[in-house]
Amino acid sequence: MTRLTDTGASDTLTVGVVQHACSADREPNLAHALSGIEHAADRGAELVLLQELHNHAYFCHSEDPSHFDLAEPVPGPTTHALGDAARRAGVCVVGSVFERRTAGIYHNTAVVLERDGAVAGTYRKMHIPDDPGYHEKFYFTPGDQGFTPIDTSIGRLGVLVCWDQWYPEAARLMALAGAELLLFPSAIGWDSADDSAERQRQLESWVTIQRSHAIANGLPVVCCNRVGDEKMSGDGPSIKFWGTSFACGPQGEMLWQAKSDRSQVSVVTIDRQRSERVRRIWPFLRDRRIDSYGEIDNRFSD
Amino acid sequence: MTRLTDTGASDTLTVGVVQHACSADREPNLAHALSGIEHAADRGAELVLLQELHNHAYFCHSEDPSHFDLAEPVPGPTTHALGDAARRAGVCVVGSVFERRTAGIYHNTAVVLERDGAVAGTYRKMHIPDDPGYHEKFYFTPGDQGFTPIDTSIGRLGVLVCWDQWYPEAARLMALAGAELLLFPSAIGWDSADDSAERQRQLESWVTIQRSHAIANGLPVVCCNRVGDEKMSGDGPSIKFWGTSFACGPQGEMLWQAKSDRSQVSVVTIDRQRSERVRRIWPFLRDRRIDSYGEIDNRFSD
Repeated sequence: MTRLTDTGASDTLTVGVVQHACSADREPNLAHALSGIEHAADRGAELVLLQELHNHAYFCHSEDPSHFDLAEPVPGPTTHALGDAARRAGVCVVGSVFERRTAGIYHNTAVVLERDGAVAGTYRKMHIPDDPGYHEKFYFTPGDQGFTPIDTSIGRLGVLVCWDQWYPEAARLMALAGAELLLFPSAIGWDSADDSAERQRQLESWVTIQRSHAIANGLPVVCCNRVGDEKMSGDGPSIKFWGTSFACGPQGEMLWQAKSDRSQVSVVTIDRQRSERVRRIWPFLRDRRIDSYGEIDNRFSD
Repeated sequence: MTRLTDTGASDTLTVGVVQHACSADREPNLAHALSGIEHAADRGAELVLLQELHNHAYFCHSEDPSHFDLAEPVPGPTTHALGDAARRAGVCVVGSVFERRTAGIYHNTAVVLERDGAVAGTYRKMHIPDDPGYHEKFYFTPGDQGFTPIDTSIGRLGVLVCWDQWYPEAARLMALAGAELLLFPSAIGWDSADDSAERQRQLESWVTIQRSHAIANGLPVVCCNRVGDEKMSGDGPSIKFWGTSFACGPQGEMLWQAKSDRSQVSVVTIDRQRSERVRRIWPFLRDRRIDSYGEIDNRFSD
């Protein structure tokens, strides 16, 4: 395996990010992802990050048992399609699948495809939200694989999913397990009832906390989030997914940021050597008080 | 005790922040802090936050055993002076002392003074840095009190110190122990050898990660950092302390930010009810995977 920090490894990693709107039908959504992989590879990407649940309109706006029909096994049709695209393009791919594991156990699962099309590993979303418009606890069983990075030919990838973004513990555990960068497929947007000040606070918070994972752990972070207005019901409110996919380096420095309102395939080049240099001047991992963190496992201390 | 979120408590908390340059002599530095407490109280502050080691020029730029002469007991001269000022002004004060605990055990200690001048509690800096220009491991024994908030008449205060800023674990543990806001006395600046791009990255990282503690935990954060150029030695490099003290709300939204290059006494008003509202729409604490964080106690998993 090539580690990002190995002497002699390529000094850069070029990452493609496929940000797009989703429609009601699976096929055009998947086609968008597949063509995005190809286009990103044409532009030099070695790794392509897709957005959360890229095959589907965001179906968690309500609780409807018929939506479980959208789920599929892993490996299954989507991992086969993504694997074929990865192999053809010669890139690693991070995709996202609504996984049916067995009757009654479904997951929100990130899948990593190797350059030869094989499944390198999966990550089942550990933190499951449930908010008005995001009824994910109905659909997704919490992951049981822990925070385990996935080894690939281009490095050890710390893949997390959306709501995990808000948890420093998730990023830390991936870093301690040797992840060389963090990757977040995401599906988050604005409630149409929120005013512009609240929207701005929410978007800034989301970018800020992900940048902080880069800073705390001295590694790059790349996030891919969908765009588009999706109606929750016939004449109900909508979610406006805010896009703004981005990449930052190990000081949280912004390397690239997408627009909030358009589909785009982008590539960003990451300096693979920078984590080594940054961790030498900001040796946060050295000074962790591992003797004193036990109460992190508490729900609350009352 | 009045909790910030108690129904019936005042809806706001006004916090004073005393950012200043330090000179070689203790007395003018302490006088600056004492007058800052008075001025902030005159402008409505109920709580005044001082900067890290406000009595001294930053003495950790080199390892010199004679600097231990600067240390003092707690309670001691500085807590008496701060307590008198707190009582006269009728405010709570968060100060910072180079504490001599016994021969060979010195701490970088935050002290909280009640409105009646009594010591409400102390926090001994848990994470100790050691970087060129910041030889703190020589001077400061790591704290052994854990991450324990301090109860006062104006709320339960999560006091941390400087390098703790970079550790999401510290903020989380304070929040889980019921802290209603986080307070960071700080002393951080630029190395004169760093170029402007590196300076910008460092300052942004520092603000970003502290905002992220607000976001992850749904509580306000206030930080007080010194300003001024301080020479490390006669004709050697200097540290330019970057000031930029700031306050943010529980979505990480910036409420106020000081300049990077001047002494100033400021007051900022915090909405005490906002944590309750923000945590209802972003219930991050609800979804923590406390079954899966055990490896946070590892140094590294190899």
